[in-house]
Amino acid sequence: MNLKIIFRVVGLLMFVEGVAMLLALIVSLIYRESDWWGFVLSSGINILGGALIIWITRKASRDIGKREGFIIVSLVWITFSLLGSLPYIFTGAIPNLTDAFFETMSGFTTTGSSILNDIESLSHGILFWRSLTHWLGGMGIIVLSLAILPIFGIGGMQLYVAEVPGPTPDKISPRIKQTAAAMWVIYLILTVAETILLWIGKMPLFDAICHSFATMATGGFSTKQASIAFWPSPYIQYVIIVFMFIAGTNFTLTYFAIRGKFKPLLKDEEFKYYALITLGFTILVFIGLLISTHTGVEETFRNSLFWVVSIITTTGFATVDYLLWQPVLIALIFSVFFFGGSAGSTGGGIKIMRIVLLFKNGYYELKRMVHPNAVIPLKFNNHSVDNKIVTNVLAFFVIYFMIFGVSTIIFMLFEPDLETSMGAVATSLGNIGPGLGSVGPAATFAHIHPVGKWFLSFLMLIGRLELFTILVLFSPSFWKQ
Amino acid sequence: MNLKIIFRVVGLLMFVEGVAMLLALIVSLIYRESDWWGFVLSSGINILGGALIIWITRKASRDIGKREGFIIVSLVWITFSLLGSLPYIFTGAIPNLTDAFFETMSGFTTTGSSILNDIESLSHGILFWRSLTHWLGGMGIIVLSLAILPIFGIGGMQLYVAEVPGPTPDKISPRIKQTAAAMWVIYLILTVAETILLWIGKMPLFDAICHSFATMATGGFSTKQASIAFWPSPYIQYVIIVFMFIAGTNFTLTYFAIRGKFKPLLKDEEFKYYALITLGFTILVFIGLLISTHTGVEETFRNSLFWVVSIITTTGFATVDYLLWQPVLIALIFSVFFFGGSAGSTGGGIKIMRIVLLFKNGYYELKRMVHPNAVIPLKFNNHSVDNKIVTNVLAFFVIYFMIFGVSTIIFMLFEPDLETSMGAVATSLGNIGPGLGSVGPAATFAHIHPVGKWFLSFLMLIGRLELFTILVLFSPSFWKQ
Repeated sequence: MNLKIIFRVVGLLMFVEGVAMLLALIVSLIYRESDWWGFVLSSGINILGGALIIWITRKASRDIGKREGFIIVSLVWITFSLLGSLPYIFTGAIPNLTDAFFETMSGFTTTGSSILNDIESLSHGILFWRSLTHWLGGMGIIVLSLAILPIFGIGGMQLYVAEVPGPTPDKISPRIKQTAAAMWVIYLILTVAETILLWIGKMPLFDAICHSFATMATGGFSTKQASIAFWPSPYIQYVIIVFMFIAGTNFTLTYFAIRGKFKPLLKDEEFKYYALITLGFTILVFIGLLISTHTGVEETFRNSLFWVVSIITTTGFATVDYLLWQPVLIALIFSVFFFGGSAGSTGGGIKIMRIVLLFKNGYYELKRMVHPNAVIPLKFNNHSVDNKIVTNVLAFFVIYFMIFGVSTIIFMLFEPDLETSMGAVATSLGNIGPGLGSVGPAATFAHIHPVGKWFLSFLMLIGRLELFTILVLFSPSFWKQ
Repeated sequence: MNLKIIFRVVGLLMFVEGVAMLLALIVSLIYRESDWWGFVLSSGINILGGALIIWITRKASRDIGKREGFIIVSLVWITFSLLGSLPYIFTGAIPNLTDAFFETMSGFTTTGSSILNDIESLSHGILFWRSLTHWLGGMGIIVLSLAILPIFGIGGMQLYVAEVPGPTPDKISPRIKQTAAAMWVIYLILTVAETILLWIGKMPLFDAICHSFATMATGGFSTKQASIAFWPSPYIQYVIIVFMFIAGTNFTLTYFAIRGKFKPLLKDEEFKYYALITLGFTILVFIGLLISTHTGVEETFRNSLFWVVSIITTTGFATVDYLLWQPVLIALIFSVFFFGGSAGSTGGGIKIMRIVLLFKNGYYELKRMVHPNAVIPLKFNNHSVDNKIVTNVLAFFVIYFMIFGVSTIIFMLFEPDLETSMGAVATSLGNIGPGLGSVGPAATFAHIHPVGKWFLSFLMLIGRLELFTILVLFSPSFWKQ
């Protein structure tokens, strides 16, 4: 195990995070807020500490093997969340570590669950830092899902990666750099575009930037306690719906679409089902709401579409409180918790590609039963899918539901209400944001037991890193030489 | 499609069921009850109708292909449940078809959910018929799971069947007859043994017979509204625990064990995990109850063991009401709903063998991630498992949970309470008996909306026939020539 290079990467992460905190410092200074020194302190610790570690480990070998890779990927989110809590603590916005860590992990994993009960009282610097954790987390996820995880054979992008190079540094680096550069440009362009469109819709520029950060990362932190309900403007809500949907789409497809090539997008099977599933749930919820409420047709449609898109992309922005709907509609929304965005997007959850493969495999199993001697290969995007990938996707699903079940029971030790527990666990594991029961869209996670908050933070991490990245660290064979 | 032979099998089933009803008639006559004519009528219709159909179809070709096989298996339970409702209707015990069908389907699928609110008011004839539906259903399941479903590539026994013969009648018949004969002898011996042991424990002979029927079939119908709580005797409860556990064990293993060969039982991986999982959950519930209640240690242990065994074997006999326990313990018991008995037993649910394979596959997936080039075959009972079986088991799990999720939402249209809906769906699909919320162990299914009752009956059927048997009938490729 090359511990030095791992340590070095942590140093690099600290340094990068420290630089990012300077942005929040600038915002704080622009608004002449008194908590600017909190950012100076946090940033200083990170930049100096990071620089020190980088200097100490300057002679570390550059050999990054598979095992180092797994550890580094996990450490990225843990380091960022631990040190990213500092601005909350030093400015006094969230004085205790448990809450600050929960909020930061929720930010970097682009979950969007919050322990804050009075968001409007926060300084611009803190609000900006909070939204920035989303945006940086989203950036991390794009590189991770498009360039790094496929090398380890993890994540939804396996289907798109025909040949995966071995994990030797000379092959990884250019690949990661190339992909990252192209995707980050798209990410930036879309963020700027949404900011401008929201600003045109009369959302103040500061809020527009923060909400664009949260949208593109499918995060969900808002600058208002009421989330998007604060802006009842249909225009603003539709803009956010469109960008949430884009953020939940595979960035490679968006990349081609922006360059005028719509064919890959329209021919992509995952995108087709992503659109169809979104449409299907929206229609069901829309009909249910039309029958059971007395809101206008357009507003009812908008509320249905908003929530389905917000949940399926795992963003978690809120308009109306779905817990006030009929129980069967709440259950319908809750079932969307188990879908998730597209592979290669910033969305979390199980992901559409896996759901489609699972359905296909189930259906093909029936076919195989009728024609036991026929060879019926599972196809995706017109290519037959390797059996290894099928087993991997199925294992993912099984492990996802086992973690969901076991965690729900464990979490009931802190929150005895079954619905609250199911909602909190599902929303954390799927990196969504709001849950059920006492952690619904109109509530926060402030009242959860401290141990429960650490538990949920861990679930966010597991969910964000596609389960296996973290679980493999707990497998004995990982640690055996 | 050889419709004639299908029709002929339905005739045979009617005839057999009519003969079985004669047993209930005898009981009715012994107790000199006034509803004996109800059994005469039901039995007469079945015997005469069956004989007529058999005579009409006497020239039917004996060719039973795969497709005919699927239809016949499904028709066995549907025919038995439809015509088995007649005694309830004709005696006036359950005057309406919906309730009578629910009760009969619950009987033949060995579920044990009941719509009866005053069981003690029923005649001995009806009580006997009710328990007999369990016993006959259990007999059917033994043949189905050990001899018929493996031929179709369905069910948990694939792992034990190295070579499966093609479905030609000359190969099936002797195989089925041979297996059936051997297993039914064991089934009968165990039923008699339990009856005697319960009788020694001062349970009246009639009740002892009925409870033995329900135990060996892992059904759960009792002759008392309070179920086993009616007999607080630890002896009786332990006897029932032991026989529930035996009924949830693979009958092939029990067969060898009874003949003095314990090696297959002790070396069997499924049995090992079946015992360990039962023990594990019992310890967890026991500790939870010790902390949260003030009952004596032995009684607490007995209550824990009783419920875990009753649920894991999918029997559903009740002692104390687990809904009165701490929420986390209720959730723990509810999680046992998703295990189920062993393959080749009368137990329903997902089944231990599948759970073990799922866990192993998940763990092996982690191993494969660390050593991507190593070939790591999945092993069960020291044999490597064919990839086709892994995919099939994983597909089963996925479909099981999708049916559970979708059905829970649909059922909320009838029962808006989420816990009630989850409980009712899980208990029907797993052929267990009691559920959560308003269908807990102390309640019945009487208050459920009629459409909801048909819906649950359908779930019992799907669950009992290992999903695929029924689902394949809905697949277009099944009906294409």
